[in-house]
Order: sequence, then C-alpha cells, then structure tokens
Amino acid sequence: MTSVDVPVALLGYGTVGSAVDRLLREQAADIERATGHRLRVVRALVRDPAKERGSEVEVTTDFAAIRDDPEIAVVAEVMGGLDPTADHVLELLRAGKPVVTANKQLVAARGAELFTAAAEGGVQLRFEASVCAAIPVIKVLREALVVSNVHRVLGIVNGTTNFVLTEMEHGSSYDEALAEAQRLGFAEPDPTEDVSGKDAAAKMAILATVAFGSRVTLDDVSYVGLERVDPADVAAAGAMGMVVRLIGAASLVGERCDVRVGPALVDRSHPLAAVEGAFNAVMLQGDAIREITLEGPGAGGIETASAVVADMVTIVGTTGTGFLQNDACWRSLERMPEGELASPFYVRVEVADRPGVLALVAMRLAAHGVSVARLVQDQGDDCATLHVVTHEAPSGQLRAALDEIDGLEETRSPASALPVVSDRGVAELGWA
Amino acid sequence: MTSVDVPVALLGYGTVGSAVDRLLREQAADIERATGHRLRVVRALVRDPAKERGSEVEVTTDFAAIRDDPEIAVVAEVMGGLDPTADHVLELLRAGKPVVTANKQLVAARGAELFTAAAEGGVQLRFEASVCAAIPVIKVLREALVVSNVHRVLGIVNGTTNFVLTEMEHGSSYDEALAEAQRLGFAEPDPTEDVSGKDAAAKMAILATVAFGSRVTLDDVSYVGLERVDPADVAAAGAMGMVVRLIGAASLVGERCDVRVGPALVDRSHPLAAVEGAFNAVMLQGDAIREITLEGPGAGGIETASAVVADMVTIVGTTGTGFLQNDACWRSLERMPEGELASPFYVRVEVADRPGVLALVAMRLAAHGVSVARLVQDQGDDCATLHVVTHEAPSGQLRAALDEIDGLEETRSPASALPVVSDRGVAELGWA
Repeated sequence: MTSVDVPVALLGYGTVGSAVDRLLREQAADIERATGHRLRVVRALVRDPAKERGSEVEVTTDFAAIRDDPEIAVVAEVMGGLDPTADHVLELLRAGKPVVTANKQLVAARGAELFTAAAEGGVQLRFEASVCAAIPVIKVLREALVVSNVHRVLGIVNGTTNFVLTEMEHGSSYDEALAEAQRLGFAEPDPTEDVSGKDAAAKMAILATVAFGSRVTLDDVSYVGLERVDPADVAAAGAMGMVVRLIGAASLVGERCDVRVGPALVDRSHPLAAVEGAFNAVMLQGDAIREITLEGPGAGGIETASAVVADMVTIVGTTGTGFLQNDACWRSLERMPEGELASPFYVRVEVADRPGVLALVAMRLAAHGVSVARLVQDQGDDCATLHVVTHEAPSGQLRAALDEIDGLEETRSPASALPVVSDRGVAELGWA
Repeated sequence: MTSVDVPVALLGYGTVGSAVDRLLREQAADIERATGHRLRVVRALVRDPAKERGSEVEVTTDFAAIRDDPEIAVVAEVMGGLDPTADHVLELLRAGKPVVTANKQLVAARGAELFTAAAEGGVQLRFEASVCAAIPVIKVLREALVVSNVHRVLGIVNGTTNFVLTEMEHGSSYDEALAEAQRLGFAEPDPTEDVSGKDAAAKMAILATVAFGSRVTLDDVSYVGLERVDPADVAAAGAMGMVVRLIGAASLVGERCDVRVGPALVDRSHPLAAVEGAFNAVMLQGDAIREITLEGPGAGGIETASAVVADMVTIVGTTGTGFLQNDACWRSLERMPEGELASPFYVRVEVADRPGVLALVAMRLAAHGVSVARLVQDQGDDCATLHVVTHEAPSGQLRAALDEIDGLEETRSPASALPVVSDRGVAELGWA
C-alpha cells in the first residue's frame, strides 16, 4: 500500500508538544508500517517564537496560520488551559479540522460544545491523553467494549495522591510524603488540584461520559481529597488487610448515575490495591466482560505524547468511514440523589471507655439499617477507639446513624467514615 | 450520519458463535450509535443444520454460500480447529472477505499464510479473541502503542493453570486443584493443552509476533507446564513473599527475541502476582509507556464473543483507509540461543546436613558467575534444604552450576530452579 503523507500541526510546544514532535520523527517508520501513513509536524503554535527549542519545527504565533492551512490534516492541542484553548479548538473543529487533545479540564468542562462543533465540522475530536496518559482506557471503552454495557468504572486516576498514600502506608507523614512527591516531580509546587481530588474528578467525568453515554461534567462529580484521610485510617486499614486509595467511582444504577472521588479502604486482594506509587489504574465492569483492569503510568510528557500520537494515527486511519460517531453521549441520565448510593463502610469513632458504649453505637447503626460486618476495639488510656466495617448500606442511612452517634454524650470526637472497596467487585461505593 | 446495513456471516455456531449472534442482536442499537453501522448475521456455517439452536439465523452446510455471497461484508470464524478451518479462512481472504478469528492455534500455526492471503485479497484479518478473550491486548498493542517500541511482554495467559496455582497457594494439592477447576468448568476433561503450557505458548507466539513485528510460531516458543511445579516451590515462594505463576515471557534483546512459557516465582508486589483464579493479565513494557498491564477474564463464551464483535466493528470502521496493514510482521528477528537469556532464579536443593556443604554449593554457583541474593536453609532430619534466590544470571550459566551441584556427593536430589519475576520490571526472565 502506498504511504500517505499527512501534515499535522500542534497547538503548544511544551513538554508534551515537543515529545509528540519527537515521537512522530523517531517513530515515523513504525507508524508508516502499521498504518500506511507518514505523519509530520509542519507547524506549531507558540507564545514566544524566539525561544530556543532544539527543533527545526516551524513555529508561529498566528493561530490562523494553522486553522486556515488546507494542507494540515490533524491538529493536536497540547497547550493546556481553557482560554484561549477552547476557542481555538472550537474554531478548528468548525473549520473541518480533526483535533486531538490532552486537556482534561477542557473536555470535562466544555465537552458538549466541543462535540457539537466536531459534529458540525464533520470531523473527529479525540481525547485519550486527557485521562491517564498512556493507558488507552478511552480507546478500550469506545472500541473494544462497544457491546459490554459498562455499568461501573473504578479508578485510581491521580498519581500524586496515590504516591502520597502509598508513602503514608510505608510510614511517612502526609507532609513528608507530599514533599517527597514534589521532590520527585510527581506533585506540583501547588498541589491543590491533585490533593483536593479535583484532578481525579475531571478524569472521572470524562470516563463516566464515555462509559455511560451521558454527559457528566466536573460539576456533576462529588469529590473529596486527602483532607479526609487521617493517619489513623491508614494504620487501621493496614491492620485489617486493606489499604487507603483515592478512588474515583462512576456507577450506573438503573437509569441513574453517580460519579464521585474520595479516599476509600481497598481490600489487599483487590486489583486496585496493587497499584503503587504514581501509577494509575482503571477497572471497567460490564456485562460481557465482567471486569477489565488497565494499569500504567498516568502522567508524564512522553507517556502523554504517545497517547496523542495514537489518537492522531487513529483519526487518520478512520476518517470518512463513519466509524466512531464523535460524541459518546446519546442519552441524558439523571444523577442519583445524594445518600442513596450504597457501599460497605469503615467507621472509626472514639468513645468513653465505659460499659455499654459499644452497645449504644451498635444500636444507633442498627436503627438506621446499617449492619456490622467486623468490629475491632482499641483500648486507649481512658477512652476506646471503635473500628467498624459495615455491610453495604446507603450512605445517607450511615450518615444519619453517625450524626446520632456524634451526638452521644460518650462520643469523644466525631465519627469518621470511608467507603470500602471489597473483593466483590459489584459492591456499590459511596461516601457518607 | 446515516446508518449502514452490514450483513455478516459466521463459520460455526457453538458457544462463541451463538453469543456473537446474540450480542449483535441485543446490542445493535449500541453498535449503531457508536459506529454508524448495523451488523446482522445473515448466515452461519454448521455441521448439522437440523440441530435445535433457539435462533432464527439461517444455517447452511455449504461453505460456498458464505464465500460467494457478495452481500456478506465480514465473516467471523468461531468453529475452531485447523481443518477445514484454515482452508475456509484462506479462501475467504483470497475472495476479498475480511475475517475475524477467535482461533489461537490457527493464528499461531498458520499466521504467515493467512496474512499473505489477506494482503492478496486486500482485506483485514483480525484476531483479538484468539488471545485472552475480552482483554483487548491486540488492539492496544497495534493501535494505542504504535510508537512505544514494546520490548517485553509478560503474561498470565492461561486461566486454568492460574486457577490451579492459586488453589495450591491456598493449600490444595495439584490433583485437588485440577479437579476443582474441572468441576467449575475452568479446565477441560483432558487438561493437557492447558497444564503443559502449550495453550499459553500459542498465545505468547501471537503476542510476540504483534509486539515485535517478527513472525513467532508455536514451534519457536519453549514451554514447560505445571509438571515443573513442586508443592515445595509454592510453599517456599509463600515464605519468601512470592507466588508461583505460569508466566509467558516474550523478550526483545537487541535484534534477537526469546519467547517462553513456564512457572516462575513472582514478587507479591508485582502486578502479575495479584492475578487470581482464572483471570489473565498481560504486562507490556516499552519505551514511551514504561509498562501497561491489562487484566481480565481470559476465557468464556460471551467474553470471547465480545472481542469478536469488537473486531468486526473495527474492520467495518476502518475498511479502505489503509489503516492497520494486516500483518504486523515486517522483520525477521533471530531467536536468542538457549541459555543466554538472563533472569534472577530461585534454586532449591536438598543436601546432606554436614559442615561445608553450603560453601560447596555457593562455590559452584560463584564459579559460573551466579551470585546469591538471598539464602534460607531449612533443617530436615538428616538433611537440609537450601533455598537460594540468585541475582540475574544467564540461564545457561545457572544450568552449568546446577549440573555440578547435582554431581556433588552431598546432594540428595537434583536441584530445581525457577525464574523470579521481581519488581524491577526490566529484569530478563529465563528457565534454566
């Protein structure tokens, strides 16, 4: 088959952009062999054209020089941010140029507009690199699991927080672990977006949208971050054969969906418990596949670039065939009301060390239909800590029970609760 | 976009074939939404047309009725076996019909011919379902990791043996574990192909071919099966924080490759150690991606059918674009000579309990450049068992050392050796 020359352009030429350029050059022969196409970067949009880049790529500050060049077949958006990025991408799509983006905030926040523009322009918008870098979870969801009715996505989709939690598991304090993550480049100088769960929430919004075919934006995702993790939780998890992970969970229950991010206790024998350090993993549960888990590096310039290149190659290879209608959304699911999603929970509460206290706590749980699977009592000097693992219960019922327990005269500090991801992959997951 | 009607045919209508038919019917709306195509089975080749099938599908015993029907756009081969299957598939490809196959023995044994026929016919041959059922490892290798220079594939690609090994880990004998696997339907009444490693070898041949771009057939794969696993290995592994797994390993070292299957000890913290029961997992290591692991059910009718359907959909969606030249092979790599591949090893040897024996064994290892990482001595009544974990060493050098150790007057029974898969994902893996 004759090789086809495919000129492409980049919006941005930073870490990811330069890695895309380098991969397309160094792997040109591999790409051509596999696909019949030879992709080459003809132009990159940059802010400062005078900056030394160590590359011969033609740079421009003029967006129109990319949008209006009829030769350019695909554009990769690797500049990040929302402004002016969103406008650029919208204009490109409307002008009939397919776009690949690595920008999770863009897809999570402006997805509806972008996909409408892509449909109007009759071109593809691909976004594999926006979630978990080189792990091809979007491709797998859209192309491999097309008949699998995925009803649950469980993921560790933020490497920074996973690194911090695995360090804490090995004895570090939160501050030490975060400092180490920053030293190794796994955490930003301002780590707020990562540790708050917001970064993971954007990724879960994208995954849920693709998995369930219904638009989920960042605003639809409840998230809590590492502020809810106490070193005592990590220690208690360890003692019970579990680990603490920041889990993103998207659930389709009937015709309603629920998407959330927060710390959870994970059974050591669960595939997600084995995810260590800055790695990411996503477990997809569906009818025909039972569950498939993908694990790998969830960040990094070259890793992200490899996903961008794969998307560019796939666009070139599927143009004009009608394959993959752009927008994965085809329905509008309602969101589950807060408190309805059920999960097993781990509850920790410090109580006065007096006869009858345990019974009081157990009664409050039972009164709200929360049944105890496991209980450990730690003796302190003049108080006791109760560690309770419950059977599956709606988070609202657990919350009501905890409010009553917090109100007991014998309770020394408010009860804390985290959901438990058990081996039974089908269990629901909520945060009380 | 207007929906396109795509008539398809099946060779075979057993467990997988009927599941493909059912998935195409039940998920027709999903497929159409995602791809713009409506696939429907118009005819199935069967041996006995009178058999009750609970389906309205038109059955035929006449292969030509499928090959020569110009309406049929894609054919799925789900009849299994090599004869007459291979001839049917060759004829279809030459007649210009794209084929999807779930038949690992066919692809591993006759790949070169089949892909030549596909190239002649100008059509695709896809085979996702031939390896690990619903786990989309072929798609990921070919489409997502196109620029990743994958140099290592490590896999647990046989569910039967993994089930048996995890049962043995929990205390069952080999016979009990195998009987339980048969009772649950994870093992055939005649389990030879699974327990001998041959099934895994065929899958590793296919994975290595795709990953390295060089034809690897079943004959190129060295394999040993569970006959090399002693309950003492399982116990020793457990005591050292490892588990025994049947590992397929394909390695590209320079311009040479090595593909083998055999039992190995796997560090508990390694992603492959977390694969329990009949599940499969494949770890892909490459330049841009570091390592990506895919885990899921590696067998089952509906799981296999979901992969067949995904391939059919992808063929329809990429026809005529030149995307994915059929044969992933583009070079001819030499095979590494036996004994050169290096790995850390676990060695177990029973020796007379006499002063100086430990030194004798250590000297023999050292004389062949094998260095000891870890040693545990178990005391018996009048003998001792040495458990040695070595640093990475070429398997030939270890074999030479073991031959000398076996020749020592103090050695009670021949030393056994299994490779170790450690956390350092880059380590090589061999069998001495």
